[in-house]
Amino acid sequence: MNNFADRLLEAVERKRSHVVLGLDPDFDLMPPDVQALAPDGVSAGTEAVAECFRAFLSDLLGALSDVVVAVKPQLAYFEALGSTGYRLYEEMVAEARSLGYLVIADAKRGDIGSTAEAYARAHLDLVGADAVTVNPWFGTDGLEPFLRRARDEGKGLFVLVKTSNPSSAEIQDLVTVSGDLVHERVADLVLRWSDGTYGASGYSSVGAVVGGTHPGQAQMLRGLLPGIPLLVPGYGAQGATAEDIGGVFDARGTGAVVNSSRAILYAYRTSGGHWLAAARAEAELMRAALWAVGSRGR
Amino acid sequence: MNNFADRLLEAVERKRSHVVLGLDPDFDLMPPDVQALAPDGVSAGTEAVAECFRAFLSDLLGALSDVVVAVKPQLAYFEALGSTGYRLYEEMVAEARSLGYLVIADAKRGDIGSTAEAYARAHLDLVGADAVTVNPWFGTDGLEPFLRRARDEGKGLFVLVKTSNPSSAEIQDLVTVSGDLVHERVADLVLRWSDGTYGASGYSSVGAVVGGTHPGQAQMLRGLLPGIPLLVPGYGAQGATAEDIGGVFDARGTGAVVNSSRAILYAYRTSGGHWLAAARAEAELMRAALWAVGSRGR
Repeated sequence: MNNFADRLLEAVERKRSHVVLGLDPDFDLMPPDVQALAPDGVSAGTEAVAECFRAFLSDLLGALSDVVVAVKPQLAYFEALGSTGYRLYEEMVAEARSLGYLVIADAKRGDIGSTAEAYARAHLDLVGADAVTVNPWFGTDGLEPFLRRARDEGKGLFVLVKTSNPSSAEIQDLVTVSGDLVHERVADLVLRWSDGTYGASGYSSVGAVVGGTHPGQAQMLRGLLPGIPLLVPGYGAQGATAEDIGGVFDARGTGAVVNSSRAILYAYRTSGGHWLAAARAEAELMRAALWAVGSRGR
Repeated sequence: MNNFADRLLEAVERKRSHVVLGLDPDFDLMPPDVQALAPDGVSAGTEAVAECFRAFLSDLLGALSDVVVAVKPQLAYFEALGSTGYRLYEEMVAEARSLGYLVIADAKRGDIGSTAEAYARAHLDLVGADAVTVNPWFGTDGLEPFLRRARDEGKGLFVLVKTSNPSSAEIQDLVTVSGDLVHERVADLVLRWSDGTYGASGYSSVGAVVGGTHPGQAQMLRGLLPGIPLLVPGYGAQGATAEDIGGVFDARGTGAVVNSSRAILYAYRTSGGHWLAAARAEAELMRAALWAVGSRGR
């Protein structure tokens, strides 16, 4: 099975989970026993902080592979440690893949065609992520290097259609002369871009990012985007609940995966207990809540 | 002088040049004597290719500091060599700054606020670029970490208002219900974002990327964006000429810088001669052509 959408939906069924774990390593939020690996804190330099990140993320990856279908390393948090952090990103992608996770590189790249080709090579070919998030602002020619790899090489992409942040309306919700919102026109483009990328599951390897913090819009986009897998950020720390998000699943209870980053990674800060057990408990709760909502249609 | 716009326009006057050199290292296009440093080509691995890039870019930086006001490393071409390439990016930024170039990190990043903070830290604080290109799709909260550094720390940003690629019309030129195009609404946002970032030059440290391949639109945006420095890609290899681009300068012949990447870097491929002399000749020609066009208003 080589099609990315097929691999993603197979993992959802096998693990009975829609949970994507965002890897957003933040030294200040890490448990004291991990921070202790860099006693001088961030002033100790990027190598020491990267060692903390490595220990923290490796333990999490080892503990959650039966609960989490995919991990989503957020490039920004790795780049914030410079080339040391970038190397850690490469290592964590390899480690996650060896543990059976799908890897969605949260790079949100977007550029003209020749440059987009270099980004696709960087994250899908060289680092070896299964999929990457992309920004649609440049239009079709900026997406083509990613689309080609979705059509021909079993890779996937998730296009930023409607993001989860408060200011997302400023551009994404502008009303066009035809009455559609700009992000609805991007949804139309996503359907066009999905041509030639559908798997046996009936889903495309061209997905869409649809913020869970706008429940009505997310449900509406589910309707506009049949056959497009949705990646839904905003669960947990950003405020969305399983009820808010229920509308993103199709009638079979699939077709979407939901990301949580800080609410799982740093669960110990609200729940207490050992940080790894707290993270696992939070991931299991999220899995169960989403599975219950998704199963209504089954 | 700490304001980024002031530093940029001062460099334009001092060097009598609007030329930005894009650093897009591509092994296949490099001259044979540079490629010879990696006799097995790209199959030799990222370290060997990075050595070629380092030699090539260092020689260029050393030869062009009186002709070129700023360099614009294109992150994609460095990421295409993984963490090795990312380290080279860090080194090249440091080397360029030590030679008196301003550095515009062509990262085109964009994300929700907390993540954008990590990207701003990565490229402006840690790597130490003077400015960074950013994607506006997320709206205000995704720009705020960059804006704060423009207001308080002498840094700059260039917002992708209208890009140079053929498909840029698909989203950027959608007509809104008010009759404006989407990219014109982004131009309005840029003016709002520029609040508190103006220097003694009368220009803001919040700039805009306006593709030179759409001459009418570029001139129109010059009018819509008084006081906003424009970064104009598309010159040379992408087809724009100095005449096409003339409209981006203000009445004093300033307020815009123009990027060329491949047409300078790989000038030897069309002009012949030693590659470094060919690059310098091409940069000098570009400087003279733009200065002549810009000076019409002086």
